[in-house]
Order: sequence, then structure tokens, then C-alpha cells
Amino acid sequence: MSEAMELKPRPTPAPDDPMAALVDALVDAYDREPVGQAGCAALPPREAIVAVVEDLRRVLFPGIYADESLPRASLRYHVGTWLCDLHRDLGRIVRLSIAHQAPERAAEEVRSEAARVAAGLLAALPDIRHALLEDAQAALDGDPAARNIEEIVLTYPGFEAITVYRLAHWLHRAGTPYVPRAMAEYAHGRTGIDIHPGATIGRRFFIDHGTGVVVGETTVIGDDVKVYQGVTLGALSVSRTFAGAKRHPTIEDRVVLYAGATVLGGETVIGRGAIIGGNVWLTQSVDAGVTVIETAPTLDFRQRGARA
Amino acid sequence: MSEAMELKPRPTPAPDDPMAALVDALVDAYDREPVGQAGCAALPPREAIVAVVEDLRRVLFPGIYADESLPRASLRYHVGTWLCDLHRDLGRIVRLSIAHQAPERAAEEVRSEAARVAAGLLAALPDIRHALLEDAQAALDGDPAARNIEEIVLTYPGFEAITVYRLAHWLHRAGTPYVPRAMAEYAHGRTGIDIHPGATIGRRFFIDHGTGVVVGETTVIGDDVKVYQGVTLGALSVSRTFAGAKRHPTIEDRVVLYAGATVLGGETVIGRGAIIGGNVWLTQSVDAGVTVIETAPTLDFRQRGARA
Amino acid sequence: MSEAMELKPRPTPAPDDPMAALVDALVDAYDREPVGQAGCAALPPREAIVAVVEDLRRVLFPGIYADESLPRASLRYHVGTWLCDLHRDLGRIVRLSIAHQAPERAAEEVRSEAARVAAGLLAALPDIRHALLEDAQAALDGDPAARNIEEIVLTYPGFEAITVYRLAHWLHRAGTPYVPRAMAEYAHGRTGIDIHPGATIGRRFFIDHGTGVVVGETTVIGDDVKVYQGVTLGALSVSRTFAGAKRHPTIEDRVVLYAGATVLGGETVIGRGAIIGGNVWLTQSVDAGVTVIETAPTLDFRQRGARA
Repeated sequence: MSEAMELKPRPTPAPDDPMAALVDALVDAYDREPVGQAGCAALPPREAIVAVVEDLRRVLFPGIYADESLPRASLRYHVGTWLCDLHRDLGRIVRLSIAHQAPERAAEEVRSEAARVAAGLLAALPDIRHALLEDAQAALDGDPAARNIEEIVLTYPGFEAITVYRLAHWLHRAGTPYVPRAMAEYAHGRTGIDIHPGATIGRRFFIDHGTGVVVGETTVIGDDVKVYQGVTLGALSVSRTFAGAKRHPTIEDRVVLYAGATVLGGETVIGRGAIIGGNVWLTQSVDAGVTVIETAPTLDFRQRGARA
Repeated sequence: MSEAMELKPRPTPAPDDPMAALVDALVDAYDREPVGQAGCAALPPREAIVAVVEDLRRVLFPGIYADESLPRASLRYHVGTWLCDLHRDLGRIVRLSIAHQAPERAAEEVRSEAARVAAGLLAALPDIRHALLEDAQAALDGDPAARNIEEIVLTYPGFEAITVYRLAHWLHRAGTPYVPRAMAEYAHGRTGIDIHPGATIGRRFFIDHGTGVVVGETTVIGDDVKVYQGVTLGALSVSRTFAGAKRHPTIEDRVVLYAGATVLGGETVIGRGAIIGGNVWLTQSVDAGVTVIETAPTLDFRQRGARA
Repeated sequence: MSEAMELKPRPTPAPDDPMAALVDALVDAYDREPVGQAGCAALPPREAIVAVVEDLRRVLFPGIYADESLPRASLRYHVGTWLCDLHRDLGRIVRLSIAHQAPERAAEEVRSEAARVAAGLLAALPDIRHALLEDAQAALDGDPAARNIEEIVLTYPGFEAITVYRLAHWLHRAGTPYVPRAMAEYAHGRTGIDIHPGATIGRRFFIDHGTGVVVGETTVIGDDVKVYQGVTLGALSVSRTFAGAKRHPTIEDRVVLYAGATVLGGETVIGRGAIIGGNVWLTQSVDAGVTVIETAPTLDFRQRGARA
């Protein structure tokens, strides 16, 4: 992947080459409308962020994600290697993202801040792992098709999305730009579950199936909440004047939101233990312990000719 | 990727290294709450399962998935190589999953059962391929945007999901743990279509677009059924006491379920040839030949000021 | 990946090998129901199409997708190398797809047409890049959670889907078979957003969240349109007799379609500046400047016992 290596065998096109005009047009386009500055202050490449997410998952659950030939006796050596590599790789993407956002800061200061952030996330891994195993237990309790914790860690998209959320949220709170959102979108792409890393989510969170779930940036979710596919916790207004304000709802402990339910607005509170039925659309608060269902829409049953 | 190779150049941190405490904390966490046992009885790694799915697709449709330089004359040689490799790789992931579920069983017995399962799936490939080409033909018949069978095999997410389902379902029926579900979640992640490998699905099944489709574990689907994006065939109760019971609906032959339709419950039967309209929510059975549509919800059309 | 290399160490199974019957059964199946002809006229392999998409994204936004060690001074050299490689790789997949569709055409003629198509798309890249940056600006204007253009290019799935659409649409208009649809399905798999490359989409298009969005083949979308997750722009009939006809709606400038809105039919026109509320289901046209919302369905709020 070394770009520099490719230079000698294939030099840039000569000026009389029709490709030369294309190169000029593109480089002009970069200069006219720069994005991410190709140069020293480049953003961390997306695949580097993805690699760090995968390496974090391996160190959280080596029994699921590591190579099978991992004898218990040498586990400490492996974990040591993984953590050293992660400290370097995570530190690098954090450093690049801070340097890109604040190009005026001294390189050494950025480097040491990035190293601190990376060490902090690694130190938090045992707690994050414990929280994730509580989430997995909630999935096991809530899904009759689930066989055991291993199956959930290995296969449940909701668990994958929550894993990435808990890692990305830690970095978001540490003030790291770009990286948390890129992690979240990686999980979104793989699972269809779109949790903004700024959201606040309590313990034992369970998302079943999950495709189409959206959890907005300023959402606050309590403990023991269950969410099904297609649930949106969103904003009422998308005016940029609301950037930074609480635009997304508060979901208290033990709430269940069934498939397709939509709850909008920063002042909307779904009270403790409430149950929100499938496809219900709410822009108002709901008291604790209340069940909200849509009055069944009238269905029209019509017998056709002899086709069946 | 050899873990062992990495040991010498980068040994585990020395005890006075701040990283050492981190290693200890993580290894303690693994011991307190073990998941998938990092050791001899490890689960098959997810990427090994994904590689087997891709290799199965290549041997099913070499004209689509194999490298272009595949001359007809040497096809038998390639297929022989692929099948030998698949027998080994599929056998290995089946063996690891059985050994993980039943660590008390003798290694040799597990190994020979896994080899039998792998050989069985390989022997079933011609029939599975024929069934899949019937599914592709149903897609071609049902989608005016489709140009030919090749385009469907190469590009349709519904076809990808059904391909993985038919492979995973075979393994599910053979009693293989973990692997079928991991295969299904790989397809879910790529397509947004979530078909549990335990579901029973007839011939010429067509899923159009597909994002958000959920087909539960005990669903039974007949022949010539068409399903659009966002259709849920789900359960009414998620109590674990229903594990193993029929919790998901029965869809008889020639039923069409339009986008966003939801059918719930193990005793709900959608009769032969019925048509279920978009967004209809059903927890009751529907007779053969009946069309069900939601009575159009009242829409409110309001002219705004001079904005347009 | 060279298939030919594998032949010597692992020859095809001997006739008395049980694997031989399997090989025969599969090769017979290929012959009985050929798909994509394993041979000279093979379709371009899917991963080659994916690689070209990724290479196109890198040359569009090297500040985001290229390796960090890309000094400004050597940028022209890199771009030249990338474009030469793209001309070859894009030319190859276009050539394979044309040759597969029209096997009767002379190889040299197909080769030169493919080279022309590839050069044409590369020449269009500066304009496509400018259009994409307008799309990114629309996302920045429309989403309070967005921080800057870089974050949108790096992380927004809607931006990823539109990027691939604008590239695939160019190839679709150039008459290239298979490749545009395969590109679109790659983006669909990663983002949950399904835009047919045949759709016509104006400037400053913004898709937020995006999971479940479907934009059909003959849809026409004006400028400054905003679309939220789960919006379907679809067809009323799926009879193959409508292949080629305008089956999908027209969305005029400045229309907003909120989450889950469905607009169906080739003669349905949503007029300039109209706003279509969440979950509204439309098969009729809407005048310019009109807001359409579903009359709030009756919700049933029921206090349960002492559970909360």
C-alpha cells in the first residue's frame, strides 16, 4: 500500500499525454474546493478507524474474535501485544483527527493528548466489557430465539451496534472529533442501526433485529430499555440554530418501544415502564406505566374472484 | 495473521510497565465473565464463517463469483479444488461449533460428525443451486427493472439473502449450532434482510429491495410468495417460555406482502393467494384469496403561504 | 488469487474419490442451468467492481480516502498513477460487461468502446466532485448534528449512497450494462439506501440517516430535495409489461419527504416546495407548496397496574 513505491515504475503522464489534462483538472478541483486537505493534516483514513474497531472487539471478546489457536497459557502475551498495537493505532487516528480540527496546535502537544486519550479508552475496556455483557444478558432474556451469550456476541447486530456505541461514546465524551462518528457509521453500515455517539444510553440496553433504528445525538435512554427494528428517536426541527440544544427525546427506565415507533422532540419524555406500540408516532410526553397503542386502523378485507 | 509469530519481537509488557496493569485487568475480566472461552474450545472465528459463505457462493455460481480467467476446459479442476477446500474449511467451523456446544464429546467423534455434515451440504449444492435459480427466475418475473438472471445473481440483495438462507437452513436442520445464525447475520448485515435460518421457506421466493425485512425463526412460507421491503413476519410475545413454540406466522402459496406489512403470531395464517397491502398490521388470520388494505388514513393537505 | 497456480499441487479428485461424483454433479448443474458462463465471456467479478468504486472515491476525495502520507508536493504523481490504474480497471469491467451482454461483437471493438467509456467517466470526475460537494453542503445545512464537510464525506451514509449513485448514473447513461447496478447494490448493502442508477436526481440532494430509502429506476427528482430514512419512491404495478415505462414518481424542486413517506406511480408529481409528512402514503399528485400530513391516528393511552 506504500504510495511512494509506485512512483518509479509509473511516472506521472507526460504533458502531451491526454491523461495530463485530467490530472490537472482534478488537482485544480482539489485546490478550488479542498476536502480533508491531502497533505500533512489529513484525516485518519476510514479503513484505519475500522481496523481499530475490529481490534477493540478482539481484545474485548478474544474467545469470539481471535484466531482459534489461542491457548490460555499465552493469553497474557497476546493481550499485551494487542494493547500495545491498539495504543499506537488508536493514538494515531485520534492524533490525526485532533490535528485536522486544530491545525494551529503544536504537534507534540497533540501527540501527547492523543496518547492520553488512547490509554484512557484502553483502561476503560474492562468496564465497557462488563457493561456489554449486561447488554448481552438483556438480549438473552428478551429474545426466545437466543440460545446463549456467545451466540449474541457472535451474531446479534443489535449487540454489534451497542458495542461500537459504547466505545465511540467514550471517545465522544473525551472530545475526540471525527473518529466516534466514523465508528458509529461503520456499525450503521453493517447493522442498519444508527446510534449517534453523543447519545446517552443506560445499562442493559437491548435492540432486536434493529434495521432502521435511529437514535439521535441528544437522546437520553435509561436502564433496561428495549427497542425493536425501525424505532426512531429523533428531532422535530432540523434547523441549524438548534445545533447543541437537546433536540431528541428522553426514554426512562424499563420502557419498551415496539417496531416502527417514532418519538420526536427534545422535551418529549417517555416515563418509566411505559410501552409504546408498533408504528406509534409521538411528539408528546407519556406518563410512567402507560401503554400507548394506535387505535387499530380500519382494514378492508375484500374477496377477489377465483384467483386463489 | 499468525499470532505466534508476533510473540518474539514484541514480548508482553514488563511488570513495571503501565500496560501490565491493563493486561491484568482484562485477563481478570475474561476469567470473571468468560465468553466463548479463549482456548481449545473457542467458537469458529466470524471471518472463517464469512469466508466459507463466499466460497460456497463461488462454487454455486462460478460464472459470477470466480475470477474471470476460468476457462471452461479446466472447470472440473477448479471445482475439485474448491470442494476439497470447502470440505476442510466448512468441516472445521462445524467441528468448532459442535465442540464448543458439547465440550464433553470425544474430539474424534465430533470431527467425524463435522466431516459428515460438511460432505452433506456439499452434496446438496446442486439441489440448492436449482432452488436458487428458481428464486432468481421469480425475481426476474416480478421486477420490471430486472434485465436477466445474471443481473439478479450479481446484484439483488434479496437473492443474496435467500442464497445464504438456503445454505444456513440446511445446516440448521443438520443441527449445527452457531454457524447458521452467524451466516444469516452476515447476510443481514449486507442486505438489511433478517431471515432466521430456522424459518421454512418454499420455492420461488422473491424479496424486492428488502431493507428491513424480518422473517422469524418459526415462520412457514409456501411457494411463490413475494415480499417487499420492511415486511415483518414476527412474534406476538417475546417471553422466553415460548422458546421452541411456533411463535411466527404461516404464509401460504402465492401470497404477496407489500412494503411495511407486519404479520404477527404463531397461529396467524395468511391463506393461499391473499394480498396484504402496504403497512397493514395483522395479528389475525386471512382467508385464501382475500385482499387486505388499510382504509386510507385521512390526509390533511394544507396550502402554505408564498414559500413554494 | 491466480486460479491457474493452484492446479499443480492439488489436482482434481481421481475417479474413485467420493468427491468426483460431487464435481460431476456440480459441473452438470452448471451446464444444465448456466449463469454468467464460466469462461471467456464471464461477467466482471463483484470484487473488481467494488475495488473500482473505492478507487474512484479515493481520486474524488484523496484528503479523506488516501493514505495519510500523501504530501501535497507529490499529489500530481499520485493522481496520475490512480487515473492510469482506474482507466485500466474500469475499462476492464466495462469491457467484460459489454462482452457478456453482446458476445457477438468483435473483441477489439468492445475493447475500444470500453476504453472510451472509462476515459469519459474519468473526464467527468471534476464535475461529479463539484456536484457531490454541493450535496455535502446541503447535508451540512440540513443536519444540526453535522460539524463540517469533512465529517459528511467521511461518515454520512447518505453521502456515500449519492456518491455511488452519481458515478453509477453516469455509466448507466453511457449504456454500460451490469456495472452501474452492481455499484448501486454495493452502496445499498453498505448504507441501506437503494437508489437505482437509472433515476434522475438534481443538485443538492440530501438523504438523512437513510436506512430503507428506495428510489426506483424511473424516478425524477429536482434540485434541493431532502429525504429521510424509510422514504420509498416506487411503482404501483410490477408487471413486466411496464418495463421501460415511467413507473416511479416525479419530485420537483425543494420538496421535503419525511421518514417513512411513500410516493408511488409514474404519473404522481409532488409539486415544487411541497412537504410530505412522516409515513404519508401517496398515489396521487400534490400541488406546489402544499403540506401533506396524515391526520393523527387515534392513540390509545392506557394506564397499567403498579408495574411502573
